[in-house]
Amino acid sequence: MSEAAQTLDGWYCLHDFRAMNWALWKTVSSDERQAAIYEFQGLLEKWGIAEDQKQGSQALYSIVGQKADFMLMILRPTMEELNVIETEFNKSKLADYTLPTYSYVSVVELSNYLPSGEDPYQNPQVLARLYPSLPEAKHVCFYPMDKRRNGEDNWYMLPMDERKSLMRSHGMIGRQYAGKVKQIITGSVGFDDFEWGVTLFSDDVLQFKKLVYEMRFDEVSARYGEFGTFFVGNILPADKLYGYFHI
Amino acid sequence: MSEAAQTLDGWYCLHDFRAMNWALWKTVSSDERQAAIYEFQGLLEKWGIAEDQKQGSQALYSIVGQKADFMLMILRPTMEELNVIETEFNKSKLADYTLPTYSYVSVVELSNYLPSGEDPYQNPQVLARLYPSLPEAKHVCFYPMDKRRNGEDNWYMLPMDERKSLMRSHGMIGRQYAGKVKQIITGSVGFDDFEWGVTLFSDDVLQFKKLVYEMRFDEVSARYGEFGTFFVGNILPADKLYGYFHI
Amino acid sequence: MSEAAQTLDGWYCLHDFRAMNWALWKTVSSDERQAAIYEFQGLLEKWGIAEDQKQGSQALYSIVGQKADFMLMILRPTMEELNVIETEFNKSKLADYTLPTYSYVSVVELSNYLPSGEDPYQNPQVLARLYPSLPEAKHVCFYPMDKRRNGEDNWYMLPMDERKSLMRSHGMIGRQYAGKVKQIITGSVGFDDFEWGVTLFSDDVLQFKKLVYEMRFDEVSARYGEFGTFFVGNILPADKLYGYFHI
Amino acid sequence: MSEAAQTLDGWYCLHDFRAMNWALWKTVSSDERQAAIYEFQGLLEKWGIAEDQKQGSQALYSIVGQKADFMLMILRPTMEELNVIETEFNKSKLADYTLPTYSYVSVVELSNYLPSGEDPYQNPQVLARLYPSLPEAKHVCFYPMDKRRNGEDNWYMLPMDERKSLMRSHGMIGRQYAGKVKQIITGSVGFDDFEWGVTLFSDDVLQFKKLVYEMRFDEVSARYGEFGTFFVGNILPADKLYGYFHI
Amino acid sequence: MSEAAQTLDGWYCLHDFRAMNWALWKTVSSDERQAAIYEFQGLLEKWGIAEDQKQGSQALYSIVGQKADFMLMILRPTMEELNVIETEFNKSKLADYTLPTYSYVSVVELSNYLPSGEDPYQNPQVLARLYPSLPEAKHVCFYPMDKRRNGEDNWYMLPMDERKSLMRSHGMIGRQYAGKVKQIITGSVGFDDFEWGVTLFSDDVLQFKKLVYEMRFDEVSARYGEFGTFFVGNILPADKLYGYFHI
Repeated sequence: MSEAAQTLDGWYCLHDFRAMNWALWKTVSSDERQAAIYEFQGLLEKWGIAEDQKQGSQALYSIVGQKADFMLMILRPTMEELNVIETEFNKSKLADYTLPTYSYVSVVELSNYLPSGEDPYQNPQVLARLYPSLPEAKHVCFYPMDKRRNGEDNWYMLPMDERKSLMRSHGMIGRQYAGKVKQIITGSVGFDDFEWGVTLFSDDVLQFKKLVYEMRFDEVSARYGEFGTFFVGNILPADKLYGYFHI
Repeated sequence: MSEAAQTLDGWYCLHDFRAMNWALWKTVSSDERQAAIYEFQGLLEKWGIAEDQKQGSQALYSIVGQKADFMLMILRPTMEELNVIETEFNKSKLADYTLPTYSYVSVVELSNYLPSGEDPYQNPQVLARLYPSLPEAKHVCFYPMDKRRNGEDNWYMLPMDERKSLMRSHGMIGRQYAGKVKQIITGSVGFDDFEWGVTLFSDDVLQFKKLVYEMRFDEVSARYGEFGTFFVGNILPADKLYGYFHI
Repeated sequence: MSEAAQTLDGWYCLHDFRAMNWALWKTVSSDERQAAIYEFQGLLEKWGIAEDQKQGSQALYSIVGQKADFMLMILRPTMEELNVIETEFNKSKLADYTLPTYSYVSVVELSNYLPSGEDPYQNPQVLARLYPSLPEAKHVCFYPMDKRRNGEDNWYMLPMDERKSLMRSHGMIGRQYAGKVKQIITGSVGFDDFEWGVTLFSDDVLQFKKLVYEMRFDEVSARYGEFGTFFVGNILPADKLYGYFHI
Repeated sequence: MSEAAQTLDGWYCLHDFRAMNWALWKTVSSDERQAAIYEFQGLLEKWGIAEDQKQGSQALYSIVGQKADFMLMILRPTMEELNVIETEFNKSKLADYTLPTYSYVSVVELSNYLPSGEDPYQNPQVLARLYPSLPEAKHVCFYPMDKRRNGEDNWYMLPMDERKSLMRSHGMIGRQYAGKVKQIITGSVGFDDFEWGVTLFSDDVLQFKKLVYEMRFDEVSARYGEFGTFFVGNILPADKLYGYFHI
Repeated sequence: MSEAAQTLDGWYCLHDFRAMNWALWKTVSSDERQAAIYEFQGLLEKWGIAEDQKQGSQALYSIVGQKADFMLMILRPTMEELNVIETEFNKSKLADYTLPTYSYVSVVELSNYLPSGEDPYQNPQVLARLYPSLPEAKHVCFYPMDKRRNGEDNWYMLPMDERKSLMRSHGMIGRQYAGKVKQIITGSVGFDDFEWGVTLFSDDVLQFKKLVYEMRFDEVSARYGEFGTFFVGNILPADKLYGYFHI
């Protein structure tokens, strides 16, 4: 048996993708639509209190293409809180005009394929990464991924040293995008269908493509990466909500 | 032909995952909703009698993310009883506001990749595992899985001794989680699309991730494991049913 | 080119799986439901005449889990008759409250991986297997399957002798279940998505699991079997129809 | 790079599979149903004019099992005409009671894996195959297929001579079914998800199974064939339309 | 790690495929339908202003077969503009009678597998390809694709020189179709599920098949190409809109 990687785990995370049922939304009165938007804004504000209290974070993005119309990303200290927020949204008026299209359940994760020898939980940089405040970047990219276990290309059969060395060179690509792309890795083994979720934030949407494409030539992705579906979107700030949903 | 593993088989098991049609649920009167919840509570109580009589067990969990809103897990001595309970639920009022999203049919199973030389059906520990009372743990994790049959990685072509040895070391990982995670393996060859269902219970949801991730580095999973979809959820006790369904 | 296996072909076969739309079913009056059940019973009786005339056979089973609520299995001398029965059901009242969830089109098949040297169509045992009367067993199991064509594991590239020898040892497992499990193999090459359908009947549902699991360790399945979805169910006899559909 | 096969291309082809929404169909008056059938018959007659003018051909078959209720197969000189016919059907009354379940876009194709040295477009037999009048056979079989590109089994990496030789022996199996099965190959590279569509016509439905099964042991299929979904059906002649749709 | 290919990136691109809900469309009055078409024409004209201003381009094609009824392809300088146009369409009357069936998010891309040594952004030919005016060709073909990463056939593990040489010979096939087929490659790594989208335009629909089939024998496609779903269609010019949607 190969030595298992150790992980540091932070806040639990729900990515909730919804499509609008625009045809149905148009059938209700302008007043009812206004009330639904208002109620949704209230929920976002209420959920935002956790952010102020450093007990979580959230982000709302509109998604390009038919996979979804918007995505709500929620970070919280417990799995129960994610469930509560998800259900609160489901019980809201706006939700009646949405269709669930995809979701992802995970937990913010840092792995030990990094230099060791300190207590990571005493490291403020580590804590900031485990309990992150989601940036208000213009764009988001989300995709789930696995490490491949296929014939000769089996990540989980590699010795720890080899995985560590591969991840180190992989990480160096990511570091070249520091300041341009913020990356949040969430682990989902035992929680959802892939092993990790990758959420990228950037003010320049092209950087997502450059980063993911460059990494694809790196052995970690080239030989061992299995990718799920990709979502890309634009920030939907509170003051644009009304316009977005307005008919 | 490789020697087939012998199994001990206990109660039959149905995992029944349902999404709420919240939009429809909101359209009915508060009284009707109350009546539907009340009727569902009555069914749960009635089904619970089997638990008291040691003729089965059941558990109800809310599921995080869009794969389902809740899961009912039912254990019973016969396949017919599972069918009766499933149909009773389908005929209930609450069911009209749910959508089936996934189910799994299996039977509690212990395999002979363990030391032999005794009559397992005389062993109270074995009996307790074949006819388990489901724990009231805070969290549940469910996933179906296969043993791989792919080129060089073909579990079913391995000699019995090798399988036994691999399973022994695999089991030792599980044992490290004793007290933290309770695991129920159900066999589904001939009953459903994968070969086994794995149901984990824990009061600490992070233990699911730690256990499944650690096992993934073990050769049994790394080379031979094929995993289906993963569900994770929080217990939905009788006294929280009303709040959960309340609009 | 490898020598093709010769087959003996009997009655055409349709497996028709349906889910009930219980919510819609509840919306109609008790009288209408009664009329729909009565009409369905009449169809079953009418179709049953073929059984008496040795011009076909049929079976009705309720299915456990969400894949379907019931399965109608029909055997007939021609493909046209299957189409007529299928359309008769679709035009019936009960069908309006069902959703098609899966179907399988095939023909009862015996293959020549058996000792040769006689005219099989003169053999009463062979005829009884090609034109079988479906047993009224308590349980049914159905799954479609292929023989694998994948790199080194390519059934169709094996010489006839090797296939014959592999099938002989495979058949010997099946024979151990004689009296416990009745197996009907239907061929579907050119008719449906897999190459065969396997329908098992038994009064002990656990025997399905034991048989399929034991066979999985046999090289024919271990190296060459590709399996589709599995259904398991309980017999739904005429005198229990009313109770099954009763609200 | 391997030498590409040259193709001869004839009429464009649309296979349009539809399921009836029987429950909805029953809700309209007998008069409306009659009008819808009458309109559909009119469309079939109108489209049939092309057949008389040798500007296309068409066929209508009912399909066995749940994959569809009927299939309309249309051949025309241009892709635009297929689009017009498809849209005409969509605008018809009957279409409102159907659900699209599958379609296939392709063009009648002959390949050069045959003896060369003549101008094929001067050959009446070639022209008859490129611009075929669809036979009124009792049964139809349709499936899409690819040539495999997988590790050692990569059709497109084989030298032309080897492909030619493999196709020649493959064709000889087909020729044994001359008079029993009529085969129309349509190419769909660049048009639809597989590389070819295969449509078989026969008065004896069992010949589909015999032909496809025998070919599966031939190296072209055994090592290089990837098959999509299979449909099988019975002819639905104009004079049986009313009965087929009658409630 | 292999050297990553550098890309030049132009306008962002949305392919938006829609099926008409013809049955619903027929239920509204002729006036309402007219108003919806008129509104849609207005949107197309408004979006067309960007074309005049060299700030984007657009194309509308009807699609053959059931995968969609029409496709709107939009090019714009930013991802936000794609989102705005998509939402404008969703809020339009016509959209209420459509069903989303597929979409693709990408960016016009040129790769460096071409001779280097100049500043490509100073090259008018390069600029014309990065910011293209979509041609009014009679036919369109769209498909997404990946470069394979599978065992021995792993594009991303090949050295840059080998990829360059393979792409050069691949490009020479494309060049043979100059004047017959216009090809627009859009990159979608990080944006959508495949790595590239390929959009072909031609006045002769058969050229799509010839081009894609010939390329399939080239090693780049034969060993390294993984293809998604294919769409083919006919131009839907403004003056045919009314007729297309007219009932």
